[in-house]
Amino acid sequence: MRLVIVGSVAFDAIETPFGKTDKIIGGAGSYIALAASYFTDSLGLISVVGGDFPEEYIQLLKNRKINTDGIEIRKNEKSFFWSGKYHEDMNTRDTLITELNVLENFEPKIPSAYQGADFLMLGNLSPEVQLKVLEGLEKRPKIIALDTMNFWINGSPENLHKIIKKTDILIINDEEARMLANENSLVKAASIILKKGPKYLVVKKGEHGALLFGEGKIFSAPALPLETVFDPTGAGDSFAGGMIGYLTQKNSFSFELMKTAVIAGSVMASFDVEKFGTEKLTELNEKRIHERFDNFISLSQFNKL
Amino acid sequence: MRLVIVGSVAFDAIETPFGKTDKIIGGAGSYIALAASYFTDSLGLISVVGGDFPEEYIQLLKNRKINTDGIEIRKNEKSFFWSGKYHEDMNTRDTLITELNVLENFEPKIPSAYQGADFLMLGNLSPEVQLKVLEGLEKRPKIIALDTMNFWINGSPENLHKIIKKTDILIINDEEARMLANENSLVKAASIILKKGPKYLVVKKGEHGALLFGEGKIFSAPALPLETVFDPTGAGDSFAGGMIGYLTQKNSFSFELMKTAVIAGSVMASFDVEKFGTEKLTELNEKRIHERFDNFISLSQFNKL
Repeated sequence: MRLVIVGSVAFDAIETPFGKTDKIIGGAGSYIALAASYFTDSLGLISVVGGDFPEEYIQLLKNRKINTDGIEIRKNEKSFFWSGKYHEDMNTRDTLITELNVLENFEPKIPSAYQGADFLMLGNLSPEVQLKVLEGLEKRPKIIALDTMNFWINGSPENLHKIIKKTDILIINDEEARMLANENSLVKAASIILKKGPKYLVVKKGEHGALLFGEGKIFSAPALPLETVFDPTGAGDSFAGGMIGYLTQKNSFSFELMKTAVIAGSVMASFDVEKFGTEKLTELNEKRIHERFDNFISLSQFNKL
Repeated sequence: MRLVIVGSVAFDAIETPFGKTDKIIGGAGSYIALAASYFTDSLGLISVVGGDFPEEYIQLLKNRKINTDGIEIRKNEKSFFWSGKYHEDMNTRDTLITELNVLENFEPKIPSAYQGADFLMLGNLSPEVQLKVLEGLEKRPKIIALDTMNFWINGSPENLHKIIKKTDILIINDEEARMLANENSLVKAASIILKKGPKYLVVKKGEHGALLFGEGKIFSAPALPLETVFDPTGAGDSFAGGMIGYLTQKNSFSFELMKTAVIAGSVMASFDVEKFGTEKLTELNEKRIHERFDNFISLSQFNKL
């Protein structure tokens, strides 16, 4: 196993101006793993679901050659369930339901085949759970990437700082970066955050793209301007999955490589929002990903003065 | 004269969290002309000031080889005066004072030396004044670029649409684009606006860069992430000035050239905000502009997958 991903596998019910879904497969772990699966087939997912979680949803991950031995099934409990409704502008949403269920006391179990992985992606979960995964790994991965959110920045600052200190790549959005650094200027916030431990900071800015900070350098990735965003759910996780999947494929780590990884992440996020839930992430192929990558080249390359 | 610029030359009094100024030189015309002057020395400015406008401020433009014969001086009237205060985040500001004065009944006078210009930049003024300039030109310029604002979109829609129809390049911000098209998606708004006449639409997004639409293509220009924005006044006009100045220098017009022009504009805007008012735009040179352009290359170029 080269890449281990930790993140929720869950039920989502989504409503956007374009329609609404029943309980479909969701969760950060699902999106990250599906997006990463286009760059490596040596990946496993650590998560937990309840007895109510359909085998066909697990199969959907297996079809993408994702190892699911790390997904614990608690037969007598219920899966994590999130329901949300997006507003007209698609940039804001209301959370209608959050039922933690199995996530309430998630004790990550690491299959022995996952030991020795060089790449670890810690999806958005409590810093306590993220720390437990690190403790359970016999060898420190070469690269540890971390996602978190405002909820943990405010609610679990001590453990969050512990895990951030051990992290190589921190992936958060602009609002979270400002909150974590307590500083309004993103450039200054990035300096402050990089002093907390990570080698690279990736700041996601939604429809405005992403910024990569590290080694005293900055890279700005555009977002693909889309005529219609169908469902933004999972865009950030698809982004993280594309990034870490690409780095796993290259089995290397540098600012130059991180730049391409950020674009690979942007490619996967741009696909994700084109259909409801994870649907688009199950029907891609290498050719379409390369074509979309070329769109990002056209979008951002220019000639000298 | 190869480039004619029309825009206000005025007094600004600016307050930002970093300090405040007395009445300094301001106005869209000043910023556009100063920024463009680094790309061509064959440019003239059409504007109007009052008898209170110091000769040294006009001299400041002349020092950059800007022809000021088109700036009418109305001895017994007062110059346009704007005063504004920026909030902590620098993205929003309160207008404290707007005294139109000479701008109230501005009748643009076109010196004969300005006739025959191939490039025309119509800075943000009433569409009526912008139309009068066009009527006063004996030959239609090869390229007409236009800036406008929400005030005219709401207040003068009929004349605004007349001038937009005659425009080759429309330069507005994201909020104005959405308002002009009455459409929330920027990509859809761009399609609607391009059907109104312009060949290219440039959408300024402030700290998020700019988008260029035209010929069925899109280009996304980053903004330079700055540690400190000292004074955002004139950033949009410096952007327009850099763009049109570069096109004038190249004396040509294509999507490829427009991409580089948008970066040239971004370069000038990134300089502008580093000091109060027009100060930074008076102390640059070709070397520094090329170095800053190279920063934009580092910021946005990446390797293939």
